[in-house]
Amino acid sequence: MPAASRIRLVSQHLSDRDQLLPAQPGTQAPSPDPATATMSQQRKLLYPTSLALDIKSLEGFSFALAPYDVKQPIPEEHVDAEVLVTWGNSADNLSDAAKRLKNVKWIQSLAAGPNDVLNAGFPSSVKVTTGSGLHDHTVAEHTLGLLLNAARRFYEMRDYQVQSKWPQHLGGVQPDRPKGKFTTLRDANVLIWGYGNIAKTLAPWLTAVGAKVRGVARSQGVREGVEVYAEDKLPQLLSETDVLVMILPGSDSTNNALNAERLSQLPNHAWVVNVGRGTAVDEEALYQALESGSIGGAALDVFVKEPLPTESKLWKAPNTIISPHAAGGRPQGAEDLIAYNLRRFVAGQELKNII
Amino acid sequence: MPAASRIRLVSQHLSDRDQLLPAQPGTQAPSPDPATATMSQQRKLLYPTSLALDIKSLEGFSFALAPYDVKQPIPEEHVDAEVLVTWGNSADNLSDAAKRLKNVKWIQSLAAGPNDVLNAGFPSSVKVTTGSGLHDHTVAEHTLGLLLNAARRFYEMRDYQVQSKWPQHLGGVQPDRPKGKFTTLRDANVLIWGYGNIAKTLAPWLTAVGAKVRGVARSQGVREGVEVYAEDKLPQLLSETDVLVMILPGSDSTNNALNAERLSQLPNHAWVVNVGRGTAVDEEALYQALESGSIGGAALDVFVKEPLPTESKLWKAPNTIISPHAAGGRPQGAEDLIAYNLRRFVAGQELKNII
Repeated sequence: MPAASRIRLVSQHLSDRDQLLPAQPGTQAPSPDPATATMSQQRKLLYPTSLALDIKSLEGFSFALAPYDVKQPIPEEHVDAEVLVTWGNSADNLSDAAKRLKNVKWIQSLAAGPNDVLNAGFPSSVKVTTGSGLHDHTVAEHTLGLLLNAARRFYEMRDYQVQSKWPQHLGGVQPDRPKGKFTTLRDANVLIWGYGNIAKTLAPWLTAVGAKVRGVARSQGVREGVEVYAEDKLPQLLSETDVLVMILPGSDSTNNALNAERLSQLPNHAWVVNVGRGTAVDEEALYQALESGSIGGAALDVFVKEPLPTESKLWKAPNTIISPHAAGGRPQGAEDLIAYNLRRFVAGQELKNII
Repeated sequence: MPAASRIRLVSQHLSDRDQLLPAQPGTQAPSPDPATATMSQQRKLLYPTSLALDIKSLEGFSFALAPYDVKQPIPEEHVDAEVLVTWGNSADNLSDAAKRLKNVKWIQSLAAGPNDVLNAGFPSSVKVTTGSGLHDHTVAEHTLGLLLNAARRFYEMRDYQVQSKWPQHLGGVQPDRPKGKFTTLRDANVLIWGYGNIAKTLAPWLTAVGAKVRGVARSQGVREGVEVYAEDKLPQLLSETDVLVMILPGSDSTNNALNAERLSQLPNHAWVVNVGRGTAVDEEALYQALESGSIGGAALDVFVKEPLPTESKLWKAPNTIISPHAAGGRPQGAEDLIAYNLRRFVAGQELKNII
C-alpha cells in the first residue's frame, strides 16, 4: 500500500475513534483567542534550539516562530505559544511548560515515542504528534551496523586490539557460511519483529547484502516484497531465525514480548538485536540465555533502564554488544513534518502521527 | 558492460599478450603423458580439504578428483597430478609440491592474490590462475561493517562496555550529519581507490544507504552508474572525501600509494579504510596522520606485515580499528570457477583469472 493511502487510512481510523469521544474544548480546529491576539498580535510556534532546523522553510503560515532552550523554563514572553515543538527537552522544562503554557493546543514531538511529553502533565485536550518517520534511516543504519558487528565479530576484535593482540581465529582462512553459526548476512535468516517504517527502510538493504528477511507484526501480509506474519507464527519463525531484530515500540502490550519461552525457541547460534524499546525484552531471561549459550549473542541499543545501570549483568554477558541508545537521536526531515502538520493545524484538519 | 563481455575482453587481451611471448613447452593445451597414463590410467586434479567443496559438481571431466591436506606433503600416489587447486596451503606444502609434482601444468588458487603459489618455486611454464571474484561479496560485507563501525563508533562503545560504563556522548540527542564529522553513510562522500569487482559489489549497498560513491582506477569511466576517475584526479577527490576505501592489490606499482602527501590531501575528519593490501598504505605516515589528528581515523584489515607485530604503533593509534585480515578468507562459488577453467583446460583454451 502506498504511504499516502496508509496515511489516509490512519487518519480515517483516528477520526472514527475521535467521533466516539465526547467533544472536548480545545480539540477542534484552533482559532486565535481574542485576548491572546491582543497581547501578541500573532499566533506563535516555539521551536527547540536542541537541533539545527531550517526555520525559513516554516515561514508563511501567519505564525510567529520563536526559538527556545529545551533545558530552561520557557521565557515569560513565550507562554502564549499555541504550538510547541519538542526535542530532547528536560523533564523540568516540560512539567513547567505544562503548568505555564495555558494557550498550547498542539505539541509536535520529534521523538518517535514521546513518553516525556505524555508524562509531563499537559491537559488531555492538548494534541500530541510524534516524530515517527524522522528516525527510520538513522535507526536502520545503526541496526545494520549492529548486525554486521555480530556477524563479523568486530567487538571481539576490539578486545584483542586493546591488548595489541592479533585474533588469528577471526581472520585468515575461514569456513564459508558454516551451519549453526551466524557469520555473514549472506543467506542469513533475519526476522524483524515490529515491522513498521524502520523495518521497511532496513529490509531492502539486508536483502541487497544477501539476507532472507521476514517480518512479524500485528497484521500479516506482504510489504514491499517481504512476507510479514502475525505473532501466532512466532514459534515456527523463531526456530528458523539466525538473527532476530526487535523494533517493537514500548507499551503494555509489548512488555517482555521476548521472554524466556520465546528465547528458547531460537536456535543456539541466533543473535538478538534490539533497537525498539528495552521493555520489549525480558532482560533477566536474555541474560540467562546468553550466559547458558542457548542463544548466540545480543546487540542491544535500548534497555529497561537507561543509562544501563553499572550493576547490570548485561555489560559482561558473553557475546553481548551494548550501544547507548544511539540508533536514533538525530531526526531527519523534521521541517517537512512540522510544516505539513502546521498547515493541517491551521486548516483544522487531522494531524499526522497523532497519538 | 555485462560481466560476460568483460570476461571475453580480458581473455582476448590476455591472448593478444600471449601471442607476443615465445611459445613455451607445457603452456599449450595439455594432453596425457603416455607414461603417466600408464601409471594412473587417468589425468588427475588435486583439491584441498581446507574448505568444503561440492566435488560432485566437478565430476564428468574424465579427471580423477583427489583430496589432499594443504598442510602436509602431497602423498606419493598423487605426485602425478596435472592440476592442483590451492587454498590456505602451508609454505612447506607448496615448496615441496613445486619439487615433486613434475606433471603439474596448472594451479588454480582460490586466493585473490596467490603470492604463496607464485613464490613456491614452480617452473614458469606452470599456469597459475587466481580466485579473483570468489571474495567480492565477503570482502564487500566486511568493508561495509568497517565503515559503519567508523561512522557509528562501535569500537569506542566497546571500550566503555568493558568498563561497565555508558558512553553518554555517543547516544541520545545527536547532531544530524554535522559538517566536518563522519557520523553516517547518509550523504557521505565515499571514495573507493582500486575500483574492481569488490568495489562493484560494495558500491550499490553504499548508495542504497545514502552514500555518494566515486571511484579511482587506472582507467576512468562510468561503471554501473559510479563515476570512476584516473589517479591524476586524486588531489581534488581526496580533498572532498569523508571516507577513503582502499582496495588496491599488492604490487610494486601500488606500494605506499597512500603516502604522507596523499594523506595530507584528506580532510581532518576523513577516515581511511584499507581492505586491499597493507603495502598500499605507508603505515608510518598513516600513524602520524592519526596521531596528529590530520585525519579522522582508520579501519584496517590488511598490513605490511601480518600478523601485525605487537610493537606496531597502529594498535593504540587514536580512532583506529584493527581487523585481522578477516574480510575475505572464505571463497564463494569456487566450484563454478574450477569447473569453468577445467573445461577450458581440457579444451586447450585460455583460462580465466590467469596471471
